[in-house]
Amino acid sequence: MSSNYRNFRNNVPWLILFLEAVFIVLFYFLFSGDGAPRSSISYPAFQDVNHMVIFGFGFFLTFLKRYGFSSTGFNLLIIVLGVQCSVLTEGLLAFLLQRANEDSLKRITKAAVSMTAVVISTGAVLGKTNPVQLILMTVVEIIAFHMSRWINKIFLEVPDDISMMHVHLFGAYFGLAVSSCFSEPPPRSEKNASTPKSDLLSMLGTLFLWVFWPSFNSVLAVANKKKAIIYNTYFALAVSAVTAFVLSVLTTKDGKFRMTHIHSAVLAGGVTVGYAAHSIEYPWIAMILGLLASVITILGSYCLQRCLNPALKIHDSSGVHFTFGFPAVLGALVQVILLAIKNWTNLPSLGYLVMFHIGAFCVTISVALITGFITGLILNLKPFKTIPVSKYFEDQFYWEFPHLAVGF
Amino acid sequence: MSSNYRNFRNNVPWLILFLEAVFIVLFYFLFSGDGAPRSSISYPAFQDVNHMVIFGFGFFLTFLKRYGFSSTGFNLLIIVLGVQCSVLTEGLLAFLLQRANEDSLKRITKAAVSMTAVVISTGAVLGKTNPVQLILMTVVEIIAFHMSRWINKIFLEVPDDISMMHVHLFGAYFGLAVSSCFSEPPPRSEKNASTPKSDLLSMLGTLFLWVFWPSFNSVLAVANKKKAIIYNTYFALAVSAVTAFVLSVLTTKDGKFRMTHIHSAVLAGGVTVGYAAHSIEYPWIAMILGLLASVITILGSYCLQRCLNPALKIHDSSGVHFTFGFPAVLGALVQVILLAIKNWTNLPSLGYLVMFHIGAFCVTISVALITGFITGLILNLKPFKTIPVSKYFEDQFYWEFPHLAVGF
Amino acid sequence: MSSNYRNFRNNVPWLILFLEAVFIVLFYFLFSGDGAPRSSISYPAFQDVNHMVIFGFGFFLTFLKRYGFSSTGFNLLIIVLGVQCSVLTEGLLAFLLQRANEDSLKRITKAAVSMTAVVISTGAVLGKTNPVQLILMTVVEIIAFHMSRWINKIFLEVPDDISMMHVHLFGAYFGLAVSSCFSEPPPRSEKNASTPKSDLLSMLGTLFLWVFWPSFNSVLAVANKKKAIIYNTYFALAVSAVTAFVLSVLTTKDGKFRMTHIHSAVLAGGVTVGYAAHSIEYPWIAMILGLLASVITILGSYCLQRCLNPALKIHDSSGVHFTFGFPAVLGALVQVILLAIKNWTNLPSLGYLVMFHIGAFCVTISVALITGFITGLILNLKPFKTIPVSKYFEDQFYWEFPHLAVGF
Repeated sequence: MSSNYRNFRNNVPWLILFLEAVFIVLFYFLFSGDGAPRSSISYPAFQDVNHMVIFGFGFFLTFLKRYGFSSTGFNLLIIVLGVQCSVLTEGLLAFLLQRANEDSLKRITKAAVSMTAVVISTGAVLGKTNPVQLILMTVVEIIAFHMSRWINKIFLEVPDDISMMHVHLFGAYFGLAVSSCFSEPPPRSEKNASTPKSDLLSMLGTLFLWVFWPSFNSVLAVANKKKAIIYNTYFALAVSAVTAFVLSVLTTKDGKFRMTHIHSAVLAGGVTVGYAAHSIEYPWIAMILGLLASVITILGSYCLQRCLNPALKIHDSSGVHFTFGFPAVLGALVQVILLAIKNWTNLPSLGYLVMFHIGAFCVTISVALITGFITGLILNLKPFKTIPVSKYFEDQFYWEFPHLAVGF
Repeated sequence: MSSNYRNFRNNVPWLILFLEAVFIVLFYFLFSGDGAPRSSISYPAFQDVNHMVIFGFGFFLTFLKRYGFSSTGFNLLIIVLGVQCSVLTEGLLAFLLQRANEDSLKRITKAAVSMTAVVISTGAVLGKTNPVQLILMTVVEIIAFHMSRWINKIFLEVPDDISMMHVHLFGAYFGLAVSSCFSEPPPRSEKNASTPKSDLLSMLGTLFLWVFWPSFNSVLAVANKKKAIIYNTYFALAVSAVTAFVLSVLTTKDGKFRMTHIHSAVLAGGVTVGYAAHSIEYPWIAMILGLLASVITILGSYCLQRCLNPALKIHDSSGVHFTFGFPAVLGALVQVILLAIKNWTNLPSLGYLVMFHIGAFCVTISVALITGFITGLILNLKPFKTIPVSKYFEDQFYWEFPHLAVGF
Repeated sequence: MSSNYRNFRNNVPWLILFLEAVFIVLFYFLFSGDGAPRSSISYPAFQDVNHMVIFGFGFFLTFLKRYGFSSTGFNLLIIVLGVQCSVLTEGLLAFLLQRANEDSLKRITKAAVSMTAVVISTGAVLGKTNPVQLILMTVVEIIAFHMSRWINKIFLEVPDDISMMHVHLFGAYFGLAVSSCFSEPPPRSEKNASTPKSDLLSMLGTLFLWVFWPSFNSVLAVANKKKAIIYNTYFALAVSAVTAFVLSVLTTKDGKFRMTHIHSAVLAGGVTVGYAAHSIEYPWIAMILGLLASVITILGSYCLQRCLNPALKIHDSSGVHFTFGFPAVLGALVQVILLAIKNWTNLPSLGYLVMFHIGAFCVTISVALITGFITGLILNLKPFKTIPVSKYFEDQFYWEFPHLAVGF
């Protein structure tokens, strides 16, 4: 391992620098002017999303007791790389397909929203990947996500803000597919656990995400839909938080609350309602969605951890399957049902609409699973694989600890 | 206790689910459309208040060393339930009194502001109530608060944004009245203490509250008053922070700073100036108010803890009496004095004005004390009372600790 | 020491109270009305900057393991005092020079931006100064900074928003000059170190600063430049974060990441690009600036800690020299180069422009070094000097620790 690691050390920085140089050169050729003169995105809205991905997700992932530096640090690293990559991919696709370039603020906002997919995926392999693998995964995933979005856009005519809502779905299943290629950690690993302090820091990140979720769902929507989206998302989140507490008591031994239930289920409502928030007219529908999302998350976490994951041999570090995957599937389903209810008088047009939505869902999930699996295989090739199972979930493998003597 | 607790476990979730079902049904009947087409509240302003109550107060209350999970977790739970309850109560009252329904964003903003009362009350009983008691308290308090506001509005013609500023007063005295019905913890309880880390997390919450306080005071004000309110609140907060440090040195043995002084007194200026911020024309008045607020808070904390609380047998976990109660009383008083100075040429109208303001103050504090005391008595009835004094201030009574072996 | 400290205790509060009384009286005479009717600053923009200085810098400085209370607490204290002092200084200067008074929100925004200089300076002497020294330093520095700005404004006709960007430069070199007058701590002081937890809290502050930096750079700019500044700052920050990770691996033994590198270098891009962000047309230029800023920061930290600092006998607690000083020098230099490239066809006007910019740079850095050194000498006079080297970096010297038995 030692010489292997020395190699790694010698190569990593040059790989990143090379990537960054390519980005700068591409920016030089692609973005000469400012694009559209006026932005449809306000700066505070962008700021909320930026805050969410950098700060909220960074601390959301700090629950592992010896992985706090890596959780927040690598999260920052992949987001800043991924945003550049995402802006470039969008720019290239717009150039190739001869679409108008967008305004600068909208570009980085869309990039930040897209990066949520990558951050969710990293949640599935948290503690099991080294920085090089994370960076490669980021680049591949962001390109795959944009490809899947453009397929949806061109062939299925899904509007931009709707196709962007597939971000949770794509992220969760891409991450799971990647994770399935990694060796599992030993079942009762002492390091794959949290402490009360790390759980509290993770709660800090979760509350941040919770508070900013309405901004996330509304940031790319058209102006006159924003208020409805904010309102519906807020109520869905509220009810899903209530349900999270209820179900946590019902499903744990002794009837106590479990922190991981709260972390994952309070956000489920926001994910689920994201698909349909613009078209929901009454808050009670959003509230029922929030309730269902929370139910599916906690029951999902129960079933997955007991039955499915051991059977499929998938290890999902921070439970993205039930935190983001299931609620997103539910959301996509509900969107189709709501559409069917609204258009049931006009059957032929309804058929088309439903087909297109189901098509977009299938395209997204297939692209995610296939590209994710391929990425996972590539990441496990010899040149990238430097981290043994015994070093999983360990900050000290990547970070200097001059304070080691002091104890954690 | 064991069987008692098993009972509790079996009942809690169904109680919450029943409550949530009632909420959803009422939402179904009450809120059919979106109400007013345009909002007078901007989304960033709402977001600030939302952030304050969920994140700021959540971490403000984390100072107890073994109660961090419950402080942040239960705070989220009661806020999401309380906001729904508050929106419903307002909607019902508006429906019964035939007033126009408000815009959706304004509704949840007002609900979030009202919830501050409940959050402050929970501060008084922090660590001494179980979740069921908290939830019942939330529902009763939010209904009582809205009743007191509507009495003020209809009989005393107090404008909406002014009557909302009674939120701190109501919260503090309601909480104290509830707390007076609970058994006191043993005087030198090892668990009723903070650690440097928990104090630092509480500082994190306090700084959040400090930064967002101008948003809180201005969010419901009319547009042309907002700037003055922000300006005055900022200076009141600034001077009260300075005074907090000064008085902390003067009142402690050895002349050191005490963290709890800082936590409570830096916010006092914001509470006090809330009542009159819209009518103060010169910043120096706000500054003097901030100074007085901080003085009354720290002297109050000194007197209460030495004399009054032991005499009255009231245990006030996070000192809401001097943190929010005293500054709010001072603010209400100052508002009347400033009004008297401004209108002293027109004595008859002045008489009316002063009477109405003092009336509103008395109504609020009476309703708070009476309903609070009744709530406290009800919460201590057998079916709700499951937590013995020895289990006060203890996360482990409610939360799973798989990491117990690791130590706190 | 004991009697000395008792003296100190008796004097500190009265000094602060006296200062606060002077401030209130001056506010009474200076700010009678509201000034300009309309603000060019939006409240959310002010809020971002306010959040940054109070919360972001407060936690950015918590990396010392036994200095968390003082880092966040004293940061709050000096900012609230400094903002008042800054508003007054600006008001006095505007009154003396017969300029129009500005709008209230703009006043406190400018004050908050100016306070960044003081916060940066305190970073250089972190853990080595007592509160009285900090307060005196704050007052002197803020007056000196405004003087240097008005010299730039009147004699060199530097626009207001540009001269404000010298804030990092001024802060870093003022702080270093002050620090050079203080005794150095023993080289391997056990207390002058961080723990993983304190580093993580510092990361929390750093991420906050990172997220809000575009707001900081754009807050005082004219409206039509804001978007470009935000865009350029974002990309400079992104590339400098990437470069920070790369160079950290390259410069440490074992090729691991070092947390302090990340803390300091991720912000470097934002500091550097601050000077020229309004005039950069293409994002790739900002990206290259971010890369250079990060390089200069990490190489600077390497050189300074090995060679320069021991030679000059300057102890720089949180490395402000390379975190803010070097990137600011680079930024000022780049601004001149970009100006030269843009105006090279018009040589005479170019000469003037370059001269003025270099002049402003020299004025700022000279005023900072000279006043800083004088301040440092004054602060080390007998009446202020109460803290022995053995008590450096120690919260317990200033704060009550009732929880001492519990252990840190």
